[in-house]
Amino acid sequence: MRLKRNMLFLKKQANTFLLTLLGLIVCTSCVRKKIEIQDKNDSSFPYTITKETKNREMSQAMKRSFENYDGIHPAENELYSQFKYTELKGLDYNGHDGTISRRDPSKIIFENGKYYVWYTYRNTIVPPIGSKRANESTDKIPSTDWDLCEIWYATSADGLTWEEQGVAVNRPPKPEVGWRSVSTTDILKWKGKYYLYYQGFMEASGKSGDYCPVAMSYSDSPDGPWTAVKGAVIENGAEGEWDQYAIHDPYPLVHNGKVYIYYKSAFNRPGNVWVAGGLAIADNPMGPFKKHKLNPVLNSGHEVSLFPFKEGVAALVICDGNEHFTIQYAKDWVNFEIASITELMPIAPGPYVPDAFTNTKDGRGITWGLSHFTNAGNGKGDQHSILGRFDCDLSLDVNDSGMKASRNFNKPEYYFSKGLSKKQLDKIKNQN
Amino acid sequence: MRLKRNMLFLKKQANTFLLTLLGLIVCTSCVRKKIEIQDKNDSSFPYTITKETKNREMSQAMKRSFENYDGIHPAENELYSQFKYTELKGLDYNGHDGTISRRDPSKIIFENGKYYVWYTYRNTIVPPIGSKRANESTDKIPSTDWDLCEIWYATSADGLTWEEQGVAVNRPPKPEVGWRSVSTTDILKWKGKYYLYYQGFMEASGKSGDYCPVAMSYSDSPDGPWTAVKGAVIENGAEGEWDQYAIHDPYPLVHNGKVYIYYKSAFNRPGNVWVAGGLAIADNPMGPFKKHKLNPVLNSGHEVSLFPFKEGVAALVICDGNEHFTIQYAKDWVNFEIASITELMPIAPGPYVPDAFTNTKDGRGITWGLSHFTNAGNGKGDQHSILGRFDCDLSLDVNDSGMKASRNFNKPEYYFSKGLSKKQLDKIKNQN
Repeated sequence: MRLKRNMLFLKKQANTFLLTLLGLIVCTSCVRKKIEIQDKNDSSFPYTITKETKNREMSQAMKRSFENYDGIHPAENELYSQFKYTELKGLDYNGHDGTISRRDPSKIIFENGKYYVWYTYRNTIVPPIGSKRANESTDKIPSTDWDLCEIWYATSADGLTWEEQGVAVNRPPKPEVGWRSVSTTDILKWKGKYYLYYQGFMEASGKSGDYCPVAMSYSDSPDGPWTAVKGAVIENGAEGEWDQYAIHDPYPLVHNGKVYIYYKSAFNRPGNVWVAGGLAIADNPMGPFKKHKLNPVLNSGHEVSLFPFKEGVAALVICDGNEHFTIQYAKDWVNFEIASITELMPIAPGPYVPDAFTNTKDGRGITWGLSHFTNAGNGKGDQHSILGRFDCDLSLDVNDSGMKASRNFNKPEYYFSKGLSKKQLDKIKNQN
Repeated sequence: MRLKRNMLFLKKQANTFLLTLLGLIVCTSCVRKKIEIQDKNDSSFPYTITKETKNREMSQAMKRSFENYDGIHPAENELYSQFKYTELKGLDYNGHDGTISRRDPSKIIFENGKYYVWYTYRNTIVPPIGSKRANESTDKIPSTDWDLCEIWYATSADGLTWEEQGVAVNRPPKPEVGWRSVSTTDILKWKGKYYLYYQGFMEASGKSGDYCPVAMSYSDSPDGPWTAVKGAVIENGAEGEWDQYAIHDPYPLVHNGKVYIYYKSAFNRPGNVWVAGGLAIADNPMGPFKKHKLNPVLNSGHEVSLFPFKEGVAALVICDGNEHFTIQYAKDWVNFEIASITELMPIAPGPYVPDAFTNTKDGRGITWGLSHFTNAGNGKGDQHSILGRFDCDLSLDVNDSGMKASRNFNKPEYYFSKGLSKKQLDKIKNQN
């Protein structure tokens, strides 16, 4: 055995010598000659990747590396990023007692020399009592964090400090769409006018579900005043269809000279609820909106947040579903593929998307936005949401290596804070 | 506009009535008749998923839901899990001053009525000085956390409290493979004997890289004594091959009556280093090991941790590469596909794999193991690693819904702790 090993070692040494000699002979060679050497080595995958490497016979995993991603390494993948978070300045939360909540920020636009964002604003006499107690909710007592809400807006010079400007869209009088609550808005700019799409609730969320269609208001200025269109602008699906109960998170972009609104709905109850993303298209902001025949177009994600990227559109796919924690890309704006897998993604992000409405065929990507954190407060009945800023590098015009790390490091204490439940621990102890 | 909406509403109401009527007529129907109703609805995706749904024309994302994953929902996917972490009892770290380190646990086996684990153990006069100062390392002063190490082992009755049993494999005398350090071991049981494969260093890690081949020791008992085989048992690749500099993390399983050792190597320097996984196969534990012609077989991951699953093998793919944070599956033990995407995966996990060596064609999966945390200490020169326990549900015999949540919730403070660097923040402030 030992002899055989020594022989092998000598053979390897000889091979190394021959290869080194060959290397010396061709060391002044052009790229072409280097490739020839690698071709002779084709029984094993090479140490150095070249343009030719992708033509080798490869395992399925290695094939995906070359075919499915923008780069062979996360750092070289324009649609890969980590996310960094910053607290905002300028927004008051009444001592974080749960009576004021801000959540579901819209995408951010830049107008009149400043950034604008719209969001769900709740200011109620008490914190939400929870969807399970929805029947105890009143005109003053909210069931969920997004019940009894209005659409407010804020502006900022730098995206870090925000000045709240007050209400944009009030709840309309009963029985109009949204009389109970208007929430989860997003903004469209179209031919010099502004359009806010949002969820319009006709009952306290939780009473019979979390059901609503999409309503809309428009204005000549991002500062309003806003005029509400009567009724729903995107209707729920017909009975038996996946989006029969709700159209949530309407998110407009402009593509092919049309208004593309991505949205989410939840279906397959009872059982494991499936949350997926749909697409509705209209020739103008007033509709009518035609739902895409291949809906749902996103199979995962609890949030709806997209941006034009090259000729296609990219989506942040977060929280729910088999393909949570991914960034996806659809060249045709319909058929999404996984472009990267990442971690600690922003919740309900509203990115700053400079080319959201330019009908671009060369989308440049995003570097920051606002997101929300739904578990602010100390968890003892003061539940509310706060807005925060996220930064990333999903831009073709930026190359921030500080955003391209493969992973976050966490302290042991953080892992241990994600511990077993008492039931799980008892089960382990009882097995032994 | 309003009239049209009202008409639409009436039409929808009428449709609902007709559908309800139709429903009543066929309410005693068999499954076949229910499908006919759904077929009439085929212009939109259905609310309720049935066996026939997968045959619809669908978007690429929805096709993947039905074709690429074990279930349409993470909760229904046997290869999806969250991970929960528990501190171990029974292991001392000298007040966490950095002089004692335990890392890279082996897979866990159950013998003699108790669990066994092997790991890299460092007990040095000072903490590691770092790979950048490797030239200042001595016979007493370690460069990295895995320099000047031995293989130690511990046993446990319940997997929560561990009793350290002392050294299993010492460093051999110079110049034998591993004289500088032996680390990152894993265990094989084969025909009643035990085999530890590990990294054998011949210089302080960091001096010219982190380079080593695989060494091996064997014993008649998990408690030793262990006999070292001379030389390397899996050689590094030839010059120019992807694994020319190192074979790390050897991880043996038994399949098709042979020894399958998965390992990792790093290549493509200079540039973004690519970390990938390879496979070497032998007829018996002594070798010779033949590397698979399709290597690398895993395109991502910094750790090597696998387990038999059904007829194939599953891999925890962690930390590095485009497909980090995934669990992958290879029916043929070579061509891996993404089976799920998850978060907060264990680092360097050594799972308890009851059927690792049974030559099974019906692998049952895993529910727990040990992993390491490399950033214990306060970060001020006392860097060391500790072992911890992880639990999960990647087992065909367990159904723990507490492990199948789509996501972890984190407090806002945790997000804000992953903040921008000063350089990144300054850049933002200067843009405005």
